[in-house]
Amino acid sequence: MRIAQIAPLWESVPPAKYGAVEALVADLSRCLVAAGHEVTVFASGDSLASGRLVAGHPRSLNADDSVIEPEAIRLRQLADVLAQAAEFDVIHSHLHSNSGLAAALVLHPLRKRTVHTLHCYANADNTQLLNGLADNAYIAISDHQRASLPRLNWRARIYHGLDVGSFPFRAEPDEPPHVAFLGRLRPDKRPDLAIAAARDAGIPIRIAGRVKPADRSYFESEIAPHVDGEAVRYLGELAFADKVSLLGSACATLVTSGLPEPFGLVTAESQLCGTPVVATRAGAIDELVEQRETGFIANDDTELPDHIHAAMKLDRTACRNYSAQRFALPRMAAEYLAVYEEIASGG
Amino acid sequence: MRIAQIAPLWESVPPAKYGAVEALVADLSRCLVAAGHEVTVFASGDSLASGRLVAGHPRSLNADDSVIEPEAIRLRQLADVLAQAAEFDVIHSHLHSNSGLAAALVLHPLRKRTVHTLHCYANADNTQLLNGLADNAYIAISDHQRASLPRLNWRARIYHGLDVGSFPFRAEPDEPPHVAFLGRLRPDKRPDLAIAAARDAGIPIRIAGRVKPADRSYFESEIAPHVDGEAVRYLGELAFADKVSLLGSACATLVTSGLPEPFGLVTAESQLCGTPVVATRAGAIDELVEQRETGFIANDDTELPDHIHAAMKLDRTACRNYSAQRFALPRMAAEYLAVYEEIASGG
Repeated sequence: MRIAQIAPLWESVPPAKYGAVEALVADLSRCLVAAGHEVTVFASGDSLASGRLVAGHPRSLNADDSVIEPEAIRLRQLADVLAQAAEFDVIHSHLHSNSGLAAALVLHPLRKRTVHTLHCYANADNTQLLNGLADNAYIAISDHQRASLPRLNWRARIYHGLDVGSFPFRAEPDEPPHVAFLGRLRPDKRPDLAIAAARDAGIPIRIAGRVKPADRSYFESEIAPHVDGEAVRYLGELAFADKVSLLGSACATLVTSGLPEPFGLVTAESQLCGTPVVATRAGAIDELVEQRETGFIANDDTELPDHIHAAMKLDRTACRNYSAQRFALPRMAAEYLAVYEEIASGG
Repeated sequence: MRIAQIAPLWESVPPAKYGAVEALVADLSRCLVAAGHEVTVFASGDSLASGRLVAGHPRSLNADDSVIEPEAIRLRQLADVLAQAAEFDVIHSHLHSNSGLAAALVLHPLRKRTVHTLHCYANADNTQLLNGLADNAYIAISDHQRASLPRLNWRARIYHGLDVGSFPFRAEPDEPPHVAFLGRLRPDKRPDLAIAAARDAGIPIRIAGRVKPADRSYFESEIAPHVDGEAVRYLGELAFADKVSLLGSACATLVTSGLPEPFGLVTAESQLCGTPVVATRAGAIDELVEQRETGFIANDDTELPDHIHAAMKLDRTACRNYSAQRFALPRMAAEYLAVYEEIASGG
């Protein structure tokens, strides 16, 4: 098949550091090319993806300070797709946030051969837009997400897949133990809650993630004062190898986001490294953690410290096996290919 | 004709306070209805525009704290237009910023009967997008804007028109004299330059305009320290009557934006009240001020204080007449109608 993959332009494909969706597009494109398909990747010009690259901008937007109006660049990427649409049997949009919503509208005329992986969770605003575009073909990244937008034409629920081999299994965490928190450091991701839970558990915490300019004052006032290099360490934004090292060396990873996350890549990655997850109950977390086997999901924030201690006693091999079985790349690629084949055959 | 007017959703039509484009849509729609046309206005639900209202959201987005994802609402407005497109002979988009760019792409399939008034000035990012959509029908709001995007299918250059009667002429400014600055208080609008010029001229300045959250720290550090209630007064964001009063009572209005503004509504409004304009040379200012007759355009910031004193000696009736002749609403409405008629007849 002739398959177009539309990636966000914020990071390169694959990303230099963090960029969950860009990493996913890189992995999926590699699998599709290996399976003999003709793949075109719409991505930033500094990408090294498998297949033919159509550069939406010379550099990834996050790396280009000269960008004045990113929305213009992101819309032009969609215009490029429209202009070249006749060359593809299937068009797969991985765009998210504003760009994902724009793609749902702009590519709606191509809905018979376009599929959109949604990365959003439902809210009052996007639900109205998406319900009006319900006849696009959508892929859910969790059952929770799918249930939150029940009127959409969901073609499948496909969990993210990880390149298992690039996540080394750590049979034993570091001693003395520490917990990890990984994610954007902003209020709704609740790094403060992770810090408080670690403190109450008496276990040091290592935090990694980007601080965007808009979140700088939050970071300075709510997070930085706790960072003492001992009980709380902040490692900055980590490249892949360091991220995997942080996750693998921890005795537990704390996932305390206050958002109804439609998936949780950190959860899947942590378990793949052998590290159990202690999470608050939100979004799709029930689909990502096997309670009391690979982690604990707290119904109440006060349970978190006890759960950290309990998680330290879980079987790390079970965590690895659960995640490797459930969130493997070949499975994801095969499931997407099945959808593409349905679409390409007019199904 | 059956005419659709697409207004921004940020403010109601007409706006409660400031909202240049929303005010323009209100004025134009009133003229079109008066001329016997069937007008549909896509705007916020709290609008009181002439014609039939299609509410894109119950309230104007700036007045609704419950909005989570304004982009979804703005895209849905375009989806509404697409869905109802068959009901119109002409569709006129007044959307600007991100929404204007999205409209250029989303409504491109309707380009034979859609016209876009552009409110942007060219930059590297939007130029590429718009050049790729050059065959839309565009209206320029100044010759300067038109020249900055030479490849577009410009159907006309139409200066904004004001409802002259609602701007009372002030034959004499207040004594003792003061100058006025009106606009968003953010770095690129250069309120700091206006303050410095007034100080160097020895004339007090009164400033009005919105401080958006993103500009709060700029305002606190660069503007607020100068505000002493005497040499520098800050009046907040003004409703229409107070804005007109500020402009009319000044001996000159300072227009010091560092941006290549494609039009300058404050310039047109100030002169309509009888108040000369002292401006820095940028964007379309040459098309808005008659040098040495209705104001002065400085080639260098150091000229501004002398220009303020020279402007105080200009004939305020000449300012009024110039603006009333050049920027009148009936002229604007007639020019738009001529374009609509061409489009509706397939021209």
